[in-house]
Amino acid sequence: MTAFDYDLFVIGGGSGGVRAGRLAASLGKRVAIAEEYRFGGTCVIRGCVPKKLFVYASQFPEHFEDSAGFGWSVGETSFDWKKLVSAKDAEIARLEGLYRRGLENAGAEILETRAELIDAHTIRLVKTGRTVTAERIVIATGGTANPHAALPGHELCITSNEAFDLPELPRSILIAGGGYIAVEFANIFHGLGVETTLIYRGKEILSRFDEDMRRGLHKAMEQKGIRIICTDIIEEVQKSPSGGLVARTLEGRTLAVEAVMLALGRDPNTAGLGVEAAGVATDERGAIVVDDYSRTNVPHIFALGDVTDRVQLTPVAIHEAMCFIETEFRNNPTKPDHDLIATAVFSQPEIGTAGLSEEAACRRYPEVEVYRAEFRPMKATLSGRAEKMIMKLIVDAASRKVVGAHVLGHDAGEMAQLLGISLKAGCTKEDFDRTMAVHPTAAEELVTMYAPSYRVRNGERV
Amino acid sequence: MTAFDYDLFVIGGGSGGVRAGRLAASLGKRVAIAEEYRFGGTCVIRGCVPKKLFVYASQFPEHFEDSAGFGWSVGETSFDWKKLVSAKDAEIARLEGLYRRGLENAGAEILETRAELIDAHTIRLVKTGRTVTAERIVIATGGTANPHAALPGHELCITSNEAFDLPELPRSILIAGGGYIAVEFANIFHGLGVETTLIYRGKEILSRFDEDMRRGLHKAMEQKGIRIICTDIIEEVQKSPSGGLVARTLEGRTLAVEAVMLALGRDPNTAGLGVEAAGVATDERGAIVVDDYSRTNVPHIFALGDVTDRVQLTPVAIHEAMCFIETEFRNNPTKPDHDLIATAVFSQPEIGTAGLSEEAACRRYPEVEVYRAEFRPMKATLSGRAEKMIMKLIVDAASRKVVGAHVLGHDAGEMAQLLGISLKAGCTKEDFDRTMAVHPTAAEELVTMYAPSYRVRNGERV
Repeated sequence: MTAFDYDLFVIGGGSGGVRAGRLAASLGKRVAIAEEYRFGGTCVIRGCVPKKLFVYASQFPEHFEDSAGFGWSVGETSFDWKKLVSAKDAEIARLEGLYRRGLENAGAEILETRAELIDAHTIRLVKTGRTVTAERIVIATGGTANPHAALPGHELCITSNEAFDLPELPRSILIAGGGYIAVEFANIFHGLGVETTLIYRGKEILSRFDEDMRRGLHKAMEQKGIRIICTDIIEEVQKSPSGGLVARTLEGRTLAVEAVMLALGRDPNTAGLGVEAAGVATDERGAIVVDDYSRTNVPHIFALGDVTDRVQLTPVAIHEAMCFIETEFRNNPTKPDHDLIATAVFSQPEIGTAGLSEEAACRRYPEVEVYRAEFRPMKATLSGRAEKMIMKLIVDAASRKVVGAHVLGHDAGEMAQLLGISLKAGCTKEDFDRTMAVHPTAAEELVTMYAPSYRVRNGERV
Repeated sequence: MTAFDYDLFVIGGGSGGVRAGRLAASLGKRVAIAEEYRFGGTCVIRGCVPKKLFVYASQFPEHFEDSAGFGWSVGETSFDWKKLVSAKDAEIARLEGLYRRGLENAGAEILETRAELIDAHTIRLVKTGRTVTAERIVIATGGTANPHAALPGHELCITSNEAFDLPELPRSILIAGGGYIAVEFANIFHGLGVETTLIYRGKEILSRFDEDMRRGLHKAMEQKGIRIICTDIIEEVQKSPSGGLVARTLEGRTLAVEAVMLALGRDPNTAGLGVEAAGVATDERGAIVVDDYSRTNVPHIFALGDVTDRVQLTPVAIHEAMCFIETEFRNNPTKPDHDLIATAVFSQPEIGTAGLSEEAACRRYPEVEVYRAEFRPMKATLSGRAEKMIMKLIVDAASRKVVGAHVLGHDAGEMAQLLGISLKAGCTKEDFDRTMAVHPTAAEELVTMYAPSYRVRNGERV
């Protein structure tokens, strides 16, 4: 009989923590899980889920417009922001309930409190002050939007947290950042009728994505009417006498808007957590340092998900949790596999991507074949919408493997998921070529690009 | 120098014929291609393309309805059938132009006439009566909707041909058939506001598809308000004194509707083609009999696409054409590969399918694992729409290969295309499991079904 109160104590009720807690409890372990806010974590409460719901909401004006080309007439339309927010809240509450019930049914003890480490085996439950002990501890406290405290006027700005629950929809918004959160929100707000400007310090949005995707999305967003300012940053935000905000930029721009949203990255949630007391090492960003098995420098303390600053994605946190369970409770040491993670940007148009960008592939392989198609999706022929889909396959000429697949356009996220299987399995271009087209689809383009658009040999296009 | 007028004469300007003609011409061959109606064939003129455009048109009412759950209010909407038909016509004309230009640019001679075989090397151009000779002949005349001439009153009915160009949208329609054309049109007409009834002689629509897909779609269509009558057939159609039609069925039903559409399969177009004169063998359905290389019993006469009654799909005809070119003009004998053809039904919800149904897999493999998920898509949580997605993977337990993948729901066609790559490449369930989820997508369900829902061993569910 162990001398600890619990076999496993999980700090943080997000995707990683809940999965770890639920699985351990279902194996008969004595598990407690502490969450200071709401179960579900960033993904459910203020990330993936509400984001995607807002994306759907913001797409309806295009449906209304597109319908005309197909013979429909639509009377006047209007949008009620509060109705969307409250519908979203109801859905989040439902999902939170599912997370809780999953934990309860597995037999985990739910503690609605902030929890902090006192030492390497002891946790203080902040709400009551009670301390408990655990044989193993999982830190899964996630991350928070970077508040950019160094920016004068940052306290006048919102982050994605607040964006989901604004009391009123602003008439105009300035979004700082060029990552997927900035880009997705720019499209959401624009779709909902907000005059939207994106400002980003880099030369092109979405660094590390394939250049064609980055440029293609940039162009599509501008065509829709989103203003994009690159190579500039906000230097100061002030209240305007007329009631809104004024942002001044490094390049001397003055931007008057109703709201400013900062989407400048996310920081690991370790402040005040007691990592020092427990002897758990963190890096210069405050992220918890873990080994290949998600183990910290303290052998019985583990960390999962965004707090480790490895790959900040829900499925990755869940995967890390499942590997942790295998390793620690099923006697089957399993390293999380962070190689080749397909992902999507729920911009409008979407980006779906699996494997390497053209640029990264050209750095890795001496000769690369690029297959590229740009075309108008069938629906746009009647809607008249000016939009292009771009599809790319990147092939390592030596092995014939498809090492990158990129889609800009409708359903790109769904496509990325399934392209991910083929790339993960090491499918070759010939496997793609041998696959019969499904007609009429957009994805058939991916199996009918028989000749390379160009080759890149030792970094030179030939 | 050959004594023939042409190196290749192609009869029929559909997907297969145009591809064969264009590729042969681009290789420098002297090519003529004859088409009696319009270039583009069934796919472009009265099949896949207009069908998909009509599917888009018929989806807008759901977009309008769904928007309410996301905070939108939509004024009164109306639909103008004639506007859709004329928009569709303009797009088809554009595509037909592309087909023609492709042929012209490659150097093929376009003959706007019906062409009939006089003997094994001679073709009569019906419009002028002129005869020409060719070293090789490709028959790619496609198929036609079965008119069901034995049905009393069949002349009062329409087929899919007429459905694309009805002068007025009927208020009610009865569609006979249970195949994908019947099912797709039932959804199109229903979506456009037509009171729709489907009648099918079999026990369940879409024979040969996976049972879960068949039942799931049946249920979804009924929930939308489409009436489906199985195990019954129309015995007679008459004009009603009130102006519409009355159909009487074998089971004694009397169905009064404005239009009756027959979607009872398609017949190969060989009547009057002169196949006897050329010595080309056909089967009892009139389909041209070909070997593994699309060669008829006359060694220099080939047949491609629907007229051969192999697999009636556009990409298959194109593939057969490309194989024919490889074999005959590039000295690279290539058999068309008809194994594992992914396909979609553009019903609402869609079906996407790759590989074997559960039923077929259980007949082929001693032990099969079935992974099955049924869930509400995220968009439906706010729209309130009662719809379920169903996803299934069928795994051969011995080889671990995924031998069937089936999706019912939005974007199922796009998913089927990409699942087709994985299945064609022989990916295993472990390849699926090793793939990281892309969240939130629907397709992520396909890589997160870790435990089989059930197994079937020697035909028995265990």
